[in-house]
Amino acid sequence: MSDLFDVVRRQRACRAFADDPVSDETVARVLEAATYAPSAENSQPWVFVVVRDADLRARIGDLTRRVWESGARDAEVDRLDAALFADVDRGMSGGVAEAPVLVVVGCDTTRAHEGAVPDSIFPAVQNLLLAATALGLGSALTTLATGFADELRDLVGLPAHVRPMAVVPLGHPVRPLGPPRRAPFSATTHRDHYSEPW
Amino acid sequence: MSDLFDVVRRQRACRAFADDPVSDETVARVLEAATYAPSAENSQPWVFVVVRDADLRARIGDLTRRVWESGARDAEVDRLDAALFADVDRGMSGGVAEAPVLVVVGCDTTRAHEGAVPDSIFPAVQNLLLAATALGLGSALTTLATGFADELRDLVGLPAHVRPMAVVPLGHPVRPLGPPRRAPFSATTHRDHYSEPW
Repeated sequence: MSDLFDVVRRQRACRAFADDPVSDETVARVLEAATYAPSAENSQPWVFVVVRDADLRARIGDLTRRVWESGARDAEVDRLDAALFADVDRGMSGGVAEAPVLVVVGCDTTRAHEGAVPDSIFPAVQNLLLAATALGLGSALTTLATGFADELRDLVGLPAHVRPMAVVPLGHPVRPLGPPRRAPFSATTHRDHYSEPW
Repeated sequence: MSDLFDVVRRQRACRAFADDPVSDETVARVLEAATYAPSAENSQPWVFVVVRDADLRARIGDLTRRVWESGARDAEVDRLDAALFADVDRGMSGGVAEAPVLVVVGCDTTRAHEGAVPDSIFPAVQNLLLAATALGLGSALTTLATGFADELRDLVGLPAHVRPMAVVPLGHPVRPLGPPRRAPFSATTHRDHYSEPW
C-alpha cells in the first residue's frame, strides 16, 4: 500500500541516478498507471518509447545538453536559487540521461485536437511520476529535449504525427530526496472571486 | 489510507452531482495535494478560485453551455460513442455546474514562461483529481469554459496575467461511477524505437 497523500507529498524531481536496474515489470506498472489519467474525449493519445539502450540514452542526453546550452542555461541562472540551479545544471548536462530508463512521452496528434494536446498528456505524465514515486523510483518531468523536437523525434523514430512532449527518467535516486518545498495552497487560493483570499 | 494504484484505477470523470455539501476542509486537502505537483522552475504558478456561490456557478454553467453549443457539440457528436456523448452533453449543458464546488484553475503567467504553462498546471490538476477521488468525491477535468477565456476571467475576477486553464467540479456523484475504460499501455508503448512494439 502506498497512500496517495503520502506519495503526493514525497514526489520530487530526481536528477542523479544510481546504476541499479529497473525491471520491465516496474516500467509496466508505471506506464499502466499513466494510462488511467483523463484525456479529452477519452482519446488516450499518449505514446511511450521506453529507452534502455545506452547509446541512445547518451544521444538524448547530448540533445538535452545542447538545448540547455542554447539559451536555457543562461536564462535560468538568474531565475533559480543557487542550489536548484546547480541540481538542474547537472541534470540537464548529463545527469538525467544516466537513468537506466528514459521514457519519451509523445502525443498522437491524430487522436487529440490541437487545443487538447497538453491537457490530454500531462495528467498521464503526472500519474507516471506518482507511480514511480510509490515504487521507490526517482523521476522527473523534463521537457527541455522537446525544444529540438525534430531531433528528438528522429532519435526514437517518432512519425510526424507523434509530437514529443516530455522525457521522464526512471531510476533509483543516487541519494535520498528531501521533501519538496511548496508555498501553502492558501497563498494562491480565492473564494468565488480573485479579490477574496481563502 | 487510499492506495495510489487503487485511486489511479478508480478515477473517472463525473458529470452529475448530488446536493451533498463539500466542506472547506475537504477542499483544502484537495488543493494542498495539487500544490505538490511539479512545475517548471518549481514556479508553482497555479491560481485557484473556489466557487460556491450558486449564482456564479450558474453563470459558469451558462458560459460552458454556450461554448459547447458554439461548435463543440456538433464536432463531438460524431467523434464520441453514444453513451459518452450523452454524458458529456448533459455535463456541458448544466450538469457539471450543479456540483456544489467549482474550482477555476488559472496560471499566473508572470511566474511561468509561455512554453511552460501547460506542463506547470495540468500535473497539479491531476493531483487535485486524484485527491478528490481518494476522498470519495466526483470530479472532472473540463477545459471547455476556457474557450471563452475573457468571459470566464471576468466572472471570477482573474487579472489579465492569470490565464484560465480548467474548471474542475467537486461534489458527490449522483450515482456510483463505473471503472474507466482504457486500452492496455502496451498498445502504445515501444522499446527504444517507435518501430519496436513493447
